[in-house]
Amino acid sequence: MTEKIKRNERMAVMMQVLTTAPNRIFTLSHFAEMFDAAKSTVSEDVALLEKAVERFSLGRLETVTGASGGVRYRPALGSGGRRAFIEDICQKLSDPSRVLPGGFLYYADILSDPEMVTGMGNLIAGACYGLLPDFVLTMETKGIPVAMMAARALGKPLVIARHTIKAYEGSAVNTPYVSASGGIETMSLPRRAVENGKKALIVDDFMRGGGTISGMKNLMREFDVEIVGTLVVLAMEAVDNRLVDNVRPLMLLGPIQHGETPVVRPADWI
Amino acid sequence: MTEKIKRNERMAVMMQVLTTAPNRIFTLSHFAEMFDAAKSTVSEDVALLEKAVERFSLGRLETVTGASGGVRYRPALGSGGRRAFIEDICQKLSDPSRVLPGGFLYYADILSDPEMVTGMGNLIAGACYGLLPDFVLTMETKGIPVAMMAARALGKPLVIARHTIKAYEGSAVNTPYVSASGGIETMSLPRRAVENGKKALIVDDFMRGGGTISGMKNLMREFDVEIVGTLVVLAMEAVDNRLVDNVRPLMLLGPIQHGETPVVRPADWI
Repeated sequence: MTEKIKRNERMAVMMQVLTTAPNRIFTLSHFAEMFDAAKSTVSEDVALLEKAVERFSLGRLETVTGASGGVRYRPALGSGGRRAFIEDICQKLSDPSRVLPGGFLYYADILSDPEMVTGMGNLIAGACYGLLPDFVLTMETKGIPVAMMAARALGKPLVIARHTIKAYEGSAVNTPYVSASGGIETMSLPRRAVENGKKALIVDDFMRGGGTISGMKNLMREFDVEIVGTLVVLAMEAVDNRLVDNVRPLMLLGPIQHGETPVVRPADWI
Repeated sequence: MTEKIKRNERMAVMMQVLTTAPNRIFTLSHFAEMFDAAKSTVSEDVALLEKAVERFSLGRLETVTGASGGVRYRPALGSGGRRAFIEDICQKLSDPSRVLPGGFLYYADILSDPEMVTGMGNLIAGACYGLLPDFVLTMETKGIPVAMMAARALGKPLVIARHTIKAYEGSAVNTPYVSASGGIETMSLPRRAVENGKKALIVDDFMRGGGTISGMKNLMREFDVEIVGTLVVLAMEAVDNRLVDNVRPLMLLGPIQHGETPVVRPADWI
């Protein structure tokens, strides 16, 4: 490159690279080489970026020391921004036209809107960095986009349990579970999808009785995997005899009646 | 805010905001207010950012003029980076241990690795910005993460067709299609998931005979939706009598034999 690269260019490009691969550690040497600059110069850039990220509540830029050290970016919303973001979704969901026959709530659109799922994924990751999961687990289908975005913010792979694994996908482990409608269904995961002894974070879209989540926990037991946390986008309030505990929902849904406005509110920890 | 915000801080923060919401137009006033700066100052920042994004092949930063004008960021890989990225995935897939009984290829891990799916999603979006889709359509399950990332880079919603829409999800449109195994299956979409008269970009994970994609096209006809483009991650080479044409794969897969190395190569347009 002929023209020298200025600090403002370096900082903008670093921020882009760090934002595109959240929670991944980039060495200072990586950036020094990229910009043909001294490591001390890059180190000053990072210090300035750290301050900027904090000032505008964009998450956290962290310097990691040690042999595999460097800098990483973790997206997160400040507690104020977090609550405002979830309240906005609650408002979108609190719409009588979303109530379907049988007292169900239509929310598939919210779960595949890029801005919504990116925000929810970042929020979930922000609450779970300290749990150090090796992967994110979800059960098909509607929770996949949010789970994928959480996995992306954590910089970890997503593993998707399915109703049936076709024979042509290789050996699989099957587990029965109680579905939302009360029937017994099967969830399945290819044997090679998960390494024994790892740590999983469960992310799912909806919880009523907890059957699906209980199924995922049983499934992970077959792989000798520890569950470090369980988050769901929406949980029904006031359900008796839930099959699981320690589940953190982003939002709580009250009992719904046809023609009435559904009551959706942020969970207390948000 | 007490301390004045410097240009390098403004540029880094703008880059973060633009990268987090790809293809969304932010007005200069938005940033001017955010930084308590003059619009002319922000406009100079944007000009410098545009140069930096181009210089480091990070995609494109574009100034959009007119009433709803402003600045937007479109992630994309340069043609060199694009080919290198896909070649790297081809190499990962060209592994005899991935061949499953019956001559199938295991690739679910590639389709839920955040770095891979973000890259593939950006690549797909980069080829499709000009097609101006209103939404991205996929059929559950394995293609959802890539389709979600393409939707994110395009700044448009994702719509997911499913095998069965449960009664509690409201009215749905069903279409029969020929599945990969040759049987007849059904795909289903809630009536309210798509507005009539819109434009769809189809993104799916795998194509052999084209049955699933043909089904999605039939399904969209029911909604009076125009298909502006169809992309798949992986397509079998040398398949006779395919049900669809004009499908762009990212990679091509040769006939596979148990115990042999699968042959996976980038499609010519990559």
